[in-house]
Amino acid sequence: MRYELYYWSSIQGRGEFVRLALEEAGAAYADVARADGGEDRMLALMGDPGQPFPPFAPPFLRAGRRMIAQTANILLFLGERHALAPKSDAGRLWTHQLQLTLADLVAEAHDTHHPIASSLYYEDQRREAKLRAADFLSHRLPKFLGYFERVLAGNSTGTATLVGRGTTYADLSLFQVVSGLKYAFPKAMARLARRHPQVLALHERVAARPRIAAYLASERRIPFNEHGIFRHYRELDR
Amino acid sequence: MRYELYYWSSIQGRGEFVRLALEEAGAAYADVARADGGEDRMLALMGDPGQPFPPFAPPFLRAGRRMIAQTANILLFLGERHALAPKSDAGRLWTHQLQLTLADLVAEAHDTHHPIASSLYYEDQRREAKLRAADFLSHRLPKFLGYFERVLAGNSTGTATLVGRGTTYADLSLFQVVSGLKYAFPKAMARLARRHPQVLALHERVAARPRIAAYLASERRIPFNEHGIFRHYRELDR
Repeated sequence: MRYELYYWSSIQGRGEFVRLALEEAGAAYADVARADGGEDRMLALMGDPGQPFPPFAPPFLRAGRRMIAQTANILLFLGERHALAPKSDAGRLWTHQLQLTLADLVAEAHDTHHPIASSLYYEDQRREAKLRAADFLSHRLPKFLGYFERVLAGNSTGTATLVGRGTTYADLSLFQVVSGLKYAFPKAMARLARRHPQVLALHERVAARPRIAAYLASERRIPFNEHGIFRHYRELDR
Repeated sequence: MRYELYYWSSIQGRGEFVRLALEEAGAAYADVARADGGEDRMLALMGDPGQPFPPFAPPFLRAGRRMIAQTANILLFLGERHALAPKSDAGRLWTHQLQLTLADLVAEAHDTHHPIASSLYYEDQRREAKLRAADFLSHRLPKFLGYFERVLAGNSTGTATLVGRGTTYADLSLFQVVSGLKYAFPKAMARLARRHPQVLALHERVAARPRIAAYLASERRIPFNEHGIFRHYRELDR
């Protein structure tokens, strides 16, 4: 079966967490909205009144007749199907808990450049963005990175992954978050990297995994840009 | 087995979604932080370096030797144990998808009064809060409410619940979100209620469920206040 991923065609965004899981799993998938007319097909599906499980927003995944939305929920589904999470109930929920914490961090990273409204341009909320980004970099980001450093240090299997011995979708997502933060806030991340060596080491190891490395070098990987979640505006970095 | 819920003692906050599920399930639980010295015990547990599955933040739930955090993740766990979600894989993920969408709405509702930083007082970001609340009430909230209205209308079982025939944790959470919104934005909600009759009707039906009604009338229900997620500031309502 070939999955169909539906997400905005010009950004990594939240769709990227799903792409990374599909790539690591070696799963066959179509990135529907990136084909001609694909974004229109995506919007038509979202608005289809006959759809029993409509998504609120992209990304969503079609798997045969099933349609699943919300990034963390899609990963819960793919994690079980492709061994990207432990089989045990405890390990499965712990992986999901980490993913939801990463989702909170992603939302806060987004709001550094859009603290007032997603419907307004960055330029119309630049003053507020500077305030929010300053708080994010001095309080919130160190708290999140410190948490994941602690989780990595606490994994007693010695594999330096977040959960147990294997690579989970939470590892892939932490890789993506660190990639995005390094793009958006190179100065702040250079400083924070020293205090969070295990988080940065995980980032490097995930990037070097064969399927992920091949993906990152391919045209399937959309470059970071100033339309997505992680944006580089020099005045917001420190 | 008696659950232990850990959450800040003076607000409903995100802990309330867990409380409602425990109450509807008729589960025995201690609301630990509300007892003498309970908040200190909560903070000690969070900081315990020997804890293999540490929470990033409250709420978290202890179930025997297990410790589970992230509101939606706790509900995923309780939903399976207490029949507050369908048993089928598709129904289980659909319920969770709705919960995650409600979690997004909750985060946006919170940020109406704290658009710049949770670490600052509301009074220090009042100007920005007015801008964010105006966008929330005119764009985001109608979009969310319209979505849940559509989901309720699309449930073909005729039970006027979100998922299948039974009451799920997503119904309880939608009740809580509507309760909070009515408290925070009475004028805006009075206007929006007309266009979202099924959402409002679900709110009434959940409030009338025997265990929920008993809970709401008890001292276990902390009143809404201006320290929680849903705060009533007249200047933010319209």
